[in-house]
Amino acid sequence: MSERIFNFSAGPAVMPEPVLREAQEALWSLDGTGIGVMEHSHRGSAFKAVLAQTEEVCRRLANIPDDYHVLYLQGGASTQFFSIPMNFLQSGDTADYIITGAWSKKAASQAKQYGKVHVAGSSEDRNFCYLPKALNWTSKARYTHITSNNTIFGTQWPGEPDVPTDSPLICDASSDIFSRPIDVRKYGMIYAGAQKNLGPSGVTLVIIRDELVKEASLDIPEMMQFRTHADNESCYNTPPTFGIYVMGRVFHWIEQQGGLEAIAEQNQDKANVLYRFLDESVLFKPTADKDSRSLMNVTFVTGDAELDTQFIATAKEAGLDGLKGHRSVGGMRASIYNAFPKAGVERLVEVMRAFEAKHGEAKHG
Amino acid sequence: MSERIFNFSAGPAVMPEPVLREAQEALWSLDGTGIGVMEHSHRGSAFKAVLAQTEEVCRRLANIPDDYHVLYLQGGASTQFFSIPMNFLQSGDTADYIITGAWSKKAASQAKQYGKVHVAGSSEDRNFCYLPKALNWTSKARYTHITSNNTIFGTQWPGEPDVPTDSPLICDASSDIFSRPIDVRKYGMIYAGAQKNLGPSGVTLVIIRDELVKEASLDIPEMMQFRTHADNESCYNTPPTFGIYVMGRVFHWIEQQGGLEAIAEQNQDKANVLYRFLDESVLFKPTADKDSRSLMNVTFVTGDAELDTQFIATAKEAGLDGLKGHRSVGGMRASIYNAFPKAGVERLVEVMRAFEAKHGEAKHG
Repeated sequence: MSERIFNFSAGPAVMPEPVLREAQEALWSLDGTGIGVMEHSHRGSAFKAVLAQTEEVCRRLANIPDDYHVLYLQGGASTQFFSIPMNFLQSGDTADYIITGAWSKKAASQAKQYGKVHVAGSSEDRNFCYLPKALNWTSKARYTHITSNNTIFGTQWPGEPDVPTDSPLICDASSDIFSRPIDVRKYGMIYAGAQKNLGPSGVTLVIIRDELVKEASLDIPEMMQFRTHADNESCYNTPPTFGIYVMGRVFHWIEQQGGLEAIAEQNQDKANVLYRFLDESVLFKPTADKDSRSLMNVTFVTGDAELDTQFIATAKEAGLDGLKGHRSVGGMRASIYNAFPKAGVERLVEVMRAFEAKHGEAKHG
Repeated sequence: MSERIFNFSAGPAVMPEPVLREAQEALWSLDGTGIGVMEHSHRGSAFKAVLAQTEEVCRRLANIPDDYHVLYLQGGASTQFFSIPMNFLQSGDTADYIITGAWSKKAASQAKQYGKVHVAGSSEDRNFCYLPKALNWTSKARYTHITSNNTIFGTQWPGEPDVPTDSPLICDASSDIFSRPIDVRKYGMIYAGAQKNLGPSGVTLVIIRDELVKEASLDIPEMMQFRTHADNESCYNTPPTFGIYVMGRVFHWIEQQGGLEAIAEQNQDKANVLYRFLDESVLFKPTADKDSRSLMNVTFVTGDAELDTQFIATAKEAGLDGLKGHRSVGGMRASIYNAFPKAGVERLVEVMRAFEAKHGEAKHG
């Protein structure tokens, strides 16, 4: 097998190597059944066992209360952007959205097809480099939508914003789910495309309160109703079986790391290595406000687009891939999700230090 | 690695073993990149190459004209059931549906939310054991929908029904796509969940004429518009990258078998082994009419539910898995898709012959 390199991709992203090894085995034969995991009927006992085990570990990891469903859906967060208002927003209803980046903006724009969208806060004035403090809620929002981590802009809510209304909090946690403990009770619904912290793209984890499922619209296609998938334990139609299997193994791996508390410490530790260097660097500057920094996506620039490009090429030669920032921020982005090894962050800092020694003087000297 | 058994599952279903071996390698490192196929950014060059190659082989295999898009969507055929009328059926419009099984019935029921559904033919009177000959079209159907192979009932259109109107033909080919040559020009759209003949569940292949894409409704969520995915080459949001990769390797494998003509011969040959035995058997009887038989799903019964159960258990002991028929037909179903080996069909006939020798007399003697 060929050697692996450090993969800073924002998503799909690096996965735990023990999970890759397990998946390789399972492709050929799942648990000694003589049939590969992709080839098992979703209604057979072998896959039913995968489903049951995946849910069990997921519930244990995040301490998910019994009145919440754990669902595996398709179509990514982008499908949830319209699925949520389609299910919950009747014309005339208002939903509160906090706009902290491109994805929450997209989520809000999709909701406008179904009801009223009230922007309860936004950080667009400074290109989403911070999390808004002054929030302005409506009194009877049908729900309140936030994005917990903003992949593109490198910001992350340190905890849930305090919602002063009774409106259920719905959170797109695609890029930081299970990177730290989460108090599920505070949410009506949490959703996450798997391809950053949980598994391959093509499966979306949805954790949703039963009450919300029951209140949702009946006047929409069956496949779009959360009710359909809750009632059929994600097997109304053929679910993305391989993705669910991998997600289950990732949950198991997180548990082996010591669970969400332990993973959170590891993530803080990895991010500290990078932010400490950035705070001292004369060449590289972090783009997010200090109190809004993401532990998952660390965004930074030299302030010189040509130098950025040169750095990305230098890093790539050193075996550090996927560091190019999103075009709306420019510069660099180091995505260091759960499965990203600390050794890779340390290597990045080494390469940055060497690059700075060579180019920092020229710029600041 | 453990030994593999014969897997007659109706879907997810057996895959070509060389593809499983390639996928195992690619999970760890795709084409020597040092990053696994699940971990590559969908916007990076390595995955872009996968996408391009997958489309290229797909177009070559099925001789797909340039004015058709090849799309990789999510949500299975069940999502297409409402997506098609959502895109194409305005209130007041009529669509023609031919009802040949549970899936086409479900497709038709989803269309009723958007416009009028005209049943142009149905075989429900005899529990879908045949394909209707007398078809009754409307003059200006917005489209005509068929299911090319009926997984549950073991029937398959020998070719497309002749649609006498200008209405574009839309075909759910989930369970027989690329099992034989297909004249794409005859269709407005062909769609197929991958999990029978093409790859893992969680990716849906859509082949759709550009004209149809352009005519579709703009008044629906962006994610539901075929236009969105056609304009963005299936990368509007993160596509199911691993599923697309595997599908591409399956296309490649089909090409190595000699393409669709050669695969069709293999499939005819495999099905003949089973049907010849069934036609002579004193114990086992095929359930579909002779002129409507599927080459993909061979359904049969003994006429005695207890004996059926006993046979399924006997077969399982002999390493033949997944033979239980769907509850709406009962008995047995041998799903023998492209990747199912002839040796497995021959083994099944041996086991049936032995079972018949033991139990046939008792029943018919």
